[in-house]
Amino acid sequence: MQNFEFYSPTRIIFGDNILKDLGKTTRDFGTKALLVYGRSSIRESGLYDRVFSTLEDSDISVEEYSGVKPNPELTHAREGSRKAMDMDAEVIIAVGGGSVIDESKAIAAGACYSGNLWDFFTRKATIKKALPVIAVQTLPATSSEINQASVITNTDTNEKFGARSPLIAPRVAFLDPSLTFTIPLKYTAYASFDIMSHLLEGYFTSTDSFAPVQDGFVEGTVRAVMSSLKMVQMNVRNKDARASLMWAGALAWNGLGKAGVEGATIPNHMLEHPLSAVYDIAHGAGLAAIFPAWLKYKRDSIAPRIRLFGERILEMGDKIKGLEEGLACDTVIEEFSRWIQDTGCPVNLRDAGIDNPDIPELVKQARTLCGYWGIEGYTDEDLATIYRLAL
Amino acid sequence: MQNFEFYSPTRIIFGDNILKDLGKTTRDFGTKALLVYGRSSIRESGLYDRVFSTLEDSDISVEEYSGVKPNPELTHAREGSRKAMDMDAEVIIAVGGGSVIDESKAIAAGACYSGNLWDFFTRKATIKKALPVIAVQTLPATSSEINQASVITNTDTNEKFGARSPLIAPRVAFLDPSLTFTIPLKYTAYASFDIMSHLLEGYFTSTDSFAPVQDGFVEGTVRAVMSSLKMVQMNVRNKDARASLMWAGALAWNGLGKAGVEGATIPNHMLEHPLSAVYDIAHGAGLAAIFPAWLKYKRDSIAPRIRLFGERILEMGDKIKGLEEGLACDTVIEEFSRWIQDTGCPVNLRDAGIDNPDIPELVKQARTLCGYWGIEGYTDEDLATIYRLAL
Repeated sequence: MQNFEFYSPTRIIFGDNILKDLGKTTRDFGTKALLVYGRSSIRESGLYDRVFSTLEDSDISVEEYSGVKPNPELTHAREGSRKAMDMDAEVIIAVGGGSVIDESKAIAAGACYSGNLWDFFTRKATIKKALPVIAVQTLPATSSEINQASVITNTDTNEKFGARSPLIAPRVAFLDPSLTFTIPLKYTAYASFDIMSHLLEGYFTSTDSFAPVQDGFVEGTVRAVMSSLKMVQMNVRNKDARASLMWAGALAWNGLGKAGVEGATIPNHMLEHPLSAVYDIAHGAGLAAIFPAWLKYKRDSIAPRIRLFGERILEMGDKIKGLEEGLACDTVIEEFSRWIQDTGCPVNLRDAGIDNPDIPELVKQARTLCGYWGIEGYTDEDLATIYRLAL
Repeated sequence: MQNFEFYSPTRIIFGDNILKDLGKTTRDFGTKALLVYGRSSIRESGLYDRVFSTLEDSDISVEEYSGVKPNPELTHAREGSRKAMDMDAEVIIAVGGGSVIDESKAIAAGACYSGNLWDFFTRKATIKKALPVIAVQTLPATSSEINQASVITNTDTNEKFGARSPLIAPRVAFLDPSLTFTIPLKYTAYASFDIMSHLLEGYFTSTDSFAPVQDGFVEGTVRAVMSSLKMVQMNVRNKDARASLMWAGALAWNGLGKAGVEGATIPNHMLEHPLSAVYDIAHGAGLAAIFPAWLKYKRDSIAPRIRLFGERILEMGDKIKGLEEGLACDTVIEEFSRWIQDTGCPVNLRDAGIDNPDIPELVKQARTLCGYWGIEGYTDEDLATIYRLAL
């Protein structure tokens, strides 16, 4: 195990009927709030009204800022910061999924900074101050509701970079599983695959000789996601299953799975970002479409981990017992691919609607879009091979 | 899953050579520190000098308060609070195991309170303010280094009660696995059993129909403790194994394992406290001595959980496949008992040196000593039966 720091200071309020306390909790931070959300869906679901009603009950004066995109954009975040400054906002309330929460964090930092907001993302400046953020999660997938990261896309430079600071970790996260009942099955599967990827990528890339606490956490949480998704497929309003997906979604990318784990990186995320950027597919769908190809490509170098995945997560120990390493891995990858298909996720690029991918463009974007965390050691030909394996 | 709140705001600094930053970190909170520790062992190991040297380097003025007992006592904590008040301490530095950290938390709250410190433990008063606590863990077992709880014994009333507040959660925890190399094997096993109990008791008492994230966390972490302990038994200075025990010890009782889990309680802790109180045995040893008896007693009502424990944690699925429920449970309990013995922990009261337990006294103390969390539904005869099964 390597040295690490772990700090996750968000107060998590989880369960039914918790939103009624949003107003009271907001008052701990101030009386002027900027409410950030995406599109009209929170109006249609009635969530918008519920949020306003609890804030009104606590005499919070609210201005709203909507239009956050699935890949939140710098110009929009900048505009949000300006709005927060203009209204002297004391607290940012994010109502939505990871994108809304990510942008809210950027707004919170930008509202306390006179320089260029993008500086935080290019590491030219460190976040020294930020408005408090309260997150109401509606699409659990990225752990943004309890972590310190914000990922923003700069459409001018075509870069998708992250900023990190404990100052932008939400102070409070409201996690009400019933808000997720209306997420369509398809998108529940995509989000689930995103959650699993946050856990599995570090698991597969780990070069740690012994990190059983972290391995155990990953194995247990991935199994939980798989079993919960299955139950949601049978009943989209299964509260316990939705709750488990929500809790797994919060914990998966808050640092527990990779704390101190040597080698743990996220190459599939790096391979996926170009897919959703170029072909406008959902991030979770892109991850599912590329993951089996990446496993095939890495098969020989991570064979023991693939076997462990088969035994401990897919629980197919009997099927691969005694098999020679390569064959065991192939069997595991096949089984995983079948599972992906069963969930309704694409299992390759064609499934994702990408019949003729522009592989040189994907490789180029993988190189430039998000930095390199996890693909530093890959040549362009390596990347191209993985995209071809995903056809 | 039930509604829950989870809040674990401690900044964790984990790994080698981290203690050199203690002084600098302390300065974030002030320049006058009260250093709390137990006995002379931290002097002998050289830790005392290292702590002083980093504090001196950062110009922290330090007074010290030693003599914390394994079951920290109210009178001593009270005296510590007075000392902290007298010196106008700005921060409490706890160097030791769970007892030292628990008492330091009490001192931190007491130093900001003019009333009776015991009020916080009898729930007559709520902690409204506390000095910041920095914890340097030397004997990982109780998660006190990152949780909100302090357990203190009032020797006048013979009560061992806990107080809870986010205000007493350590602000920073220094977890350096190399500090644990010198813990004797026997005590490493006791501490490991304590860690496992914090996870397993909720697992066995859970009445939740579906809480796979929490179950997975418990299963993975308990397996990690078992495999790490085995490695430590082969080499007490195995850094990775010591690191895993330390990380598991921090996470086991910080709330993750039981967050939202219906029914999760800690009856074995309630049964153990009288053992260590009356017979002065180590807490972890007492837990190991009573746990198999409790399992036997509960066998029929928690059979599916015992089977799951056998399959997922002891990994003995093959051995119990097809066995009728009762026999499967007996087989699992036997295997677990054997494992306990192999670690050098007592597996029953005789093993723990208690040949003729005063069962009525134990029952009486179980009723009064610590409140009832987990044994509310047990009659006196139930409790006596369990103690008898532990003979």
